[in-house]
Amino acid sequence: IQEGEFFKLKEALKSFEPNEVVELLEQEEEREQLIIFRLLPLRLATEVFEYLDLDIQKHFLANLSQDKISDILNEMSPDDRTALLEFLPDELVRELIQTLSEPERKVTLELLGYPEYSVGRLMTPDYIAIRESWTVQQVLDYIRRHGGQSETLSVLYVTDERGILIDDIRIREFLLADPQKRVSELMDRRFVQLNTMQDQEEAIEVFRRNDRVALPVVNDEGVLFGIVTIDDILDIREEEDTEDIQKLGGSEALDAPYLDTPIWKMVQKRAGWLVILLIGEMLTTSAMHHFEDDLQKAAVLGLFIPLIISAGGNAGSQATSLIIRAMSLGEFSLSDWWLVMRRELLSGLALGSILGVVGALRIVLWANYIDPGYFGPYWQLIAVTVGFSLLGIVLWGALSGAMLPMLLRRLGLDPATSSAPFVATLVDVTGLIIYFSVATFVLRGTLL
Amino acid sequence: IQEGEFFKLKEALKSFEPNEVVELLEQEEEREQLIIFRLLPLRLATEVFEYLDLDIQKHFLANLSQDKISDILNEMSPDDRTALLEFLPDELVRELIQTLSEPERKVTLELLGYPEYSVGRLMTPDYIAIRESWTVQQVLDYIRRHGGQSETLSVLYVTDERGILIDDIRIREFLLADPQKRVSELMDRRFVQLNTMQDQEEAIEVFRRNDRVALPVVNDEGVLFGIVTIDDILDIREEEDTEDIQKLGGSEALDAPYLDTPIWKMVQKRAGWLVILLIGEMLTTSAMHHFEDDLQKAAVLGLFIPLIISAGGNAGSQATSLIIRAMSLGEFSLSDWWLVMRRELLSGLALGSILGVVGALRIVLWANYIDPGYFGPYWQLIAVTVGFSLLGIVLWGALSGAMLPMLLRRLGLDPATSSAPFVATLVDVTGLIIYFSVATFVLRGTLL
Repeated sequence: IQEGEFFKLKEALKSFEPNEVVELLEQEEEREQLIIFRLLPLRLATEVFEYLDLDIQKHFLANLSQDKISDILNEMSPDDRTALLEFLPDELVRELIQTLSEPERKVTLELLGYPEYSVGRLMTPDYIAIRESWTVQQVLDYIRRHGGQSETLSVLYVTDERGILIDDIRIREFLLADPQKRVSELMDRRFVQLNTMQDQEEAIEVFRRNDRVALPVVNDEGVLFGIVTIDDILDIREEEDTEDIQKLGGSEALDAPYLDTPIWKMVQKRAGWLVILLIGEMLTTSAMHHFEDDLQKAAVLGLFIPLIISAGGNAGSQATSLIIRAMSLGEFSLSDWWLVMRRELLSGLALGSILGVVGALRIVLWANYIDPGYFGPYWQLIAVTVGFSLLGIVLWGALSGAMLPMLLRRLGLDPATSSAPFVATLVDVTGLIIYFSVATFVLRGTLL
Repeated sequence: IQEGEFFKLKEALKSFEPNEVVELLEQEEEREQLIIFRLLPLRLATEVFEYLDLDIQKHFLANLSQDKISDILNEMSPDDRTALLEFLPDELVRELIQTLSEPERKVTLELLGYPEYSVGRLMTPDYIAIRESWTVQQVLDYIRRHGGQSETLSVLYVTDERGILIDDIRIREFLLADPQKRVSELMDRRFVQLNTMQDQEEAIEVFRRNDRVALPVVNDEGVLFGIVTIDDILDIREEEDTEDIQKLGGSEALDAPYLDTPIWKMVQKRAGWLVILLIGEMLTTSAMHHFEDDLQKAAVLGLFIPLIISAGGNAGSQATSLIIRAMSLGEFSLSDWWLVMRRELLSGLALGSILGVVGALRIVLWANYIDPGYFGPYWQLIAVTVGFSLLGIVLWGALSGAMLPMLLRRLGLDPATSSAPFVATLVDVTGLIIYFSVATFVLRGTLL
């Protein structure tokens, strides 16, 4: 197909679904992508363009003629267009916005006036507003005439003469109602709305609570400005979950698919935390230096250091992951910190006891059956030391792993910054102190 | 209100939105919840019931009269009912299903016949099927008469006389079209469909690719059986993401909100992995035992053990989180393992070099400015040992953290089982071996 038969290709492409074209494009080289894209009919080109990766979108914008670009931008739905423009350098944005037709430009500029991560940035002004005095038949006629632009027809919005939202009615009500009925008869004046300046995370929460495919957005006076549709909310939710997981693993959010992130950029995103954690972990060297006398007197204590500090780190990773996820699902608020603390206190005690017993048993087994004499005459005391250290460190790991994300949220930071490696490092350093304190207490007068 | 004025309360409740009632119920005690719930009109009661937590649902089922229960179950949408029944003990399910009316029972039983996690379990048979010979006006009339049952009216499905799906058409096409047009004129015979036996994860992928609010489900012959709506898909996606994060943190999936999980159950879900990891970590004790002679000759090596093994664990956590998320978003398939491997090889080398330099610098700084003489005459060699050990361990951590989830998927297991603590433990044990091997090589003839 690549050898010149452009006309045939053009005809063939006409019958493709947008997602089929996207799949086709993804398999091709940059040059072929452009050729195929140029051959698409405008409508299809726009839909395909909306589905493409941002990188490919940028590449296309840099290489297509100005006319084709403005055609595509004009055809794109306003919220997708805003998402695209946000990612481009400011100069290119200014240039591109100039290519938009008058009304489209106005819409985009308006959308861009809202703070990043505000609901205003997500909304599309393509919705249907009706009046309460209309009949159902009038509404259906109105849709037939003006609905072509609207992004979703699932819900219609009733506004008064000042443009203030007074109700939302699902299209099904109109489809099921007698055409002679008035809109006012279908109204219940109860509706859920978002504010333009609201945070997008709050919007996700509202969507989660209300099972809707679209929600109206109003300004402070209650005037209907636009709607937010569920597909945009989904994308944001997915992005936020991805960020949470990546941060939890101890790197910065990648902002792009794994395989599409340039290696130097990936190293950049990962090196920061690794270096910070390494420097934090250097405190373990200082701590061990501090306890060197004890270690020299009882070298056997050194054998259990990795075992004990990693158990605390693992308990901390568990707790921090559970709490971060629960917080991002809105399962509890900061004021519930005491409930969480009590739970982790109890779980931490239980888990610590289990691990303490397993750890102590290991020493008892070794000392009696596997390698008698290895731990010396005080093996019972060593077992007690390891057991109680595990109890203390697991409890401490669970508590700090759970409280740290809540503390970060309280300070206005992202809870997911309290990553598994971060908690593990914190617990490593303090864990050494717990271990040697328990050892000093138990072994004083014998080994120490 | 609680003091006897039930009639007034009943009247007041009538004007509530379902989600308002849910919020109200969540604030009340169990006894009050039941009272309020009994006072709700049936339609509202059903909607409220669908929104409630599974625990409250069970409590209600155990305490409401048989009549009220069967009324509610009959009114619930089939897919929500199936979700509820799946969570109840088998005996209670059999009992409850008996209370369903004949057609409702048939529907539920049919839905229950599909394997768990199959698309069949998610679908609702409440959709609108039309014929291609109908006019738009006929379709709209048909909806007005039969659409009340349908879960979504956003998309209508065209079937032939054998019930085989031949197209899906969005309701907006009908709303915008001339009422005299025939359905066949609106058709493009291109549609996306799911199979009843398909895995729900695949369905999520199909929804992600196609930006739809509902998708039709067909059997192997192409006969339309039901539809799956996006709200069910969303719930499943959220659950899977929650599972991923919880597993990544090193516990089993909780299956319920954090605060609602009984403490003993939480301990159970978390203890398993902690004990396994503790036992795994015991290998570090054996490894250190093995290198005891070296440690006795060069006690200074012991100081860096926590630092070095945790750096490897952190690099591993990062890699495993990035890869698990990318896999769950379908960013690459198993056959791309070589691409991933190459990336981690390069990133691991870069990250390891950075950490190696930082670690070695620390020793150089200490030996020259902070605590001269502490590391003895061979501080340069110790810096080299720590530096190269960090390089090797970070590289090894990144590689094993990335490859482990892919290996698990290859074996048909859940990639998220390769949790951050699991990778960290694996790298701890092997990290010690790397560290002491480097030390033997560098320090032979001097300290060792």
